[in-house]
Amino acid sequence: MTEKKEWQPPRGTRDYLPKEMATRNKVFAKMRRVFELYGYGEVSTPAFEDFDLLAAKSGPEIEEEIYAFEDKGKRKLGLRFDPTVPICRIVASNPSLTKPIRFYYITNMWRYDRPQAGRYREFWQAGLELIGAKGANADAEILGVANDLLTSVTDKEFYFRISSRKIIEEIAERAGIPKSKREGAFRAIDKLDKVGEDDVRGELERCGVTAKVSDKFFDLIKKQDADIGELKEIKEAAEKMGVKNIEIDLSIVRGIDYYTGFVFETLVRGSEKLGSVCSGGRYDSLIGLYGGGDLPATGFGLGIDRLLDIIGYDEDYYPTRIFVAAVNDEVRDVAVKITRILREEGISAETDLMQRNLRKQFEYINARGIPFAVIIGPREVEENKIVLRDMATGKEDKICLKDIKEWL
Amino acid sequence: MTEKKEWQPPRGTRDYLPKEMATRNKVFAKMRRVFELYGYGEVSTPAFEDFDLLAAKSGPEIEEEIYAFEDKGKRKLGLRFDPTVPICRIVASNPSLTKPIRFYYITNMWRYDRPQAGRYREFWQAGLELIGAKGANADAEILGVANDLLTSVTDKEFYFRISSRKIIEEIAERAGIPKSKREGAFRAIDKLDKVGEDDVRGELERCGVTAKVSDKFFDLIKKQDADIGELKEIKEAAEKMGVKNIEIDLSIVRGIDYYTGFVFETLVRGSEKLGSVCSGGRYDSLIGLYGGGDLPATGFGLGIDRLLDIIGYDEDYYPTRIFVAAVNDEVRDVAVKITRILREEGISAETDLMQRNLRKQFEYINARGIPFAVIIGPREVEENKIVLRDMATGKEDKICLKDIKEWL
Repeated sequence: MTEKKEWQPPRGTRDYLPKEMATRNKVFAKMRRVFELYGYGEVSTPAFEDFDLLAAKSGPEIEEEIYAFEDKGKRKLGLRFDPTVPICRIVASNPSLTKPIRFYYITNMWRYDRPQAGRYREFWQAGLELIGAKGANADAEILGVANDLLTSVTDKEFYFRISSRKIIEEIAERAGIPKSKREGAFRAIDKLDKVGEDDVRGELERCGVTAKVSDKFFDLIKKQDADIGELKEIKEAAEKMGVKNIEIDLSIVRGIDYYTGFVFETLVRGSEKLGSVCSGGRYDSLIGLYGGGDLPATGFGLGIDRLLDIIGYDEDYYPTRIFVAAVNDEVRDVAVKITRILREEGISAETDLMQRNLRKQFEYINARGIPFAVIIGPREVEENKIVLRDMATGKEDKICLKDIKEWL
Repeated sequence: MTEKKEWQPPRGTRDYLPKEMATRNKVFAKMRRVFELYGYGEVSTPAFEDFDLLAAKSGPEIEEEIYAFEDKGKRKLGLRFDPTVPICRIVASNPSLTKPIRFYYITNMWRYDRPQAGRYREFWQAGLELIGAKGANADAEILGVANDLLTSVTDKEFYFRISSRKIIEEIAERAGIPKSKREGAFRAIDKLDKVGEDDVRGELERCGVTAKVSDKFFDLIKKQDADIGELKEIKEAAEKMGVKNIEIDLSIVRGIDYYTGFVFETLVRGSEKLGSVCSGGRYDSLIGLYGGGDLPATGFGLGIDRLLDIIGYDEDYYPTRIFVAAVNDEVRDVAVKITRILREEGISAETDLMQRNLRKQFEYINARGIPFAVIIGPREVEENKIVLRDMATGKEDKICLKDIKEWL
């Protein structure tokens, strides 16, 4: 049955091969460094959670996107769609944790979403949660981390757009959007960048918001006709931490229901159409919902897949630096021994496992793009030397093995 | 509804908090280094695959353990229970990959297993696949990598037990175990270490193997009454690569159906009851099964959870090295600035976000075990100096910020 089928990764998912992983691992290492400079410690939670936990505060659009299943004990489970909910579970069930709690994560998650450019059903995020601290300095700190994370991995110019759910709620109130229609209305407004104002107005109308109310709402937002003192304070605090690229923009609402105040997005200058690469905000009621007592909290997630598409991958990564080629079968054992010594010296090395002759071994070296070859023949064994060839220049030197590091 | 419930990770899974993650990340970094010294490149595959792909060669016991579900497009999917199958999918659908292929992985996977000490339903493995190479040197190479991996992370004495499915098949033939009963019989024998010979004999009887046949089988295995030339060759080749701790033991069969020849286990001397920490073998028919044409292949997986239990976790990890304490509210802005400068110097630092007074700030420093405090007061600001306190000794020095690295 399986003989003829061409197997692929499931729709909306993908494999990462060594070239992509080399870039991803480099990016992750830089990010870990930044998180830890700010005192954040990494956490890792199971891939699946009780479905009820995930659904409790995700909002109807996201609930539909959860990969849900029953285990063989009839427990209803779901794949993590977001790392914030499991982290709130940890905090709620460990009330003795010292505050503020600074947790970060670098992990995959899953949403049954329509696959599209830069969007996957399995996707990776790095992010943090700062729990127990309220006030402008806490929100400013997470902008500081986001700023340093992005600066550490890309030269692209990016900027933050900050807003506040609380202020938008007030504007919605003044514009006359009824409370019952606000969650739907905010999800519509969240798509402003992607679909434009006309489409958002259409969706608002379908949510039961009249054109007149929409007019008033957009007018107030554009004029920033509201008390934005809270946002100015965050902006100033973040500037003291070295974040210079912040714009206050009340059209930012974020589509997730659990935000209660400050929210932000991060755009790449000139590539705004890509959408936000790093987004988050304050969610002061979520932990209480999971039984932990109310705790102020703020955090963000940074989409790794989109970020890597922007950064681009390294060319042709292959870890081996030296291939030890054996001229004939008699010296293969010596090649094995020299390969082992090179590894002990911390140099990535390999030798032939395919019973290839010397010509085929060099075809392999070229196919892989391995930068150096050590050539072992009977004469070299006798002289206790090796021939080192620089594959880029073709230059060969007969040297002592112990001196090899000087030649690489 | 969610207010009162005490939320936990799903049964058989667990959270990793920063202390555990710090140890795990250190172990992973060392392992990546070893894999790459041997020329292996990391790959990462989706958490779920087509169920049919997973089930094709897993054997009935494992198939029962797969977390299976339908996505909303009615595709039958399953969570990865093993990384070898997805890697075979990649290789089968990319016939142009240069051989030998050296892939490694460090990833989580899932089995709906009875939870027990050291066994989880979500568990982590590091491992490799060496694809395209046959012969003793290839099998010896993977023992070399396993040996270096374990040596890089633990001082415990461990040893390899190697065997061969082919040889055991021959012994089963000679003992008179019929072909149709062998898969069940091998899974029974695989439990020898855990349950002892009597229980294995009982299970063999239930599989339809008579006591007389069992007697003969165990007799042949114990006497190593078979042609074990293939295993001697692997042992010698591995010894040339520096692996000294290999025992030939024909009672090792491994419970997975896809092995075709060489198999091995790794035990910690004196802790054999823990079971194997690193196991694998040769599977020359699996890639052909996924449509890639037959390719010889050998590989292993190393259980991270069990390994970390053996190694033990670092004590009380917290990333921050310096807490910048503000004596009063007037100097908080200076504390923010100094914290920022410390981070720019590559020193993990934080300052108060909780509006705590100086005494409370020091309670926090002690609760966290942060090793150094910088104390900022109006006089220090005036003198352009900082007070650095070593929290272990209580010793304080008034220094210039630019000299701080000399004092840590």
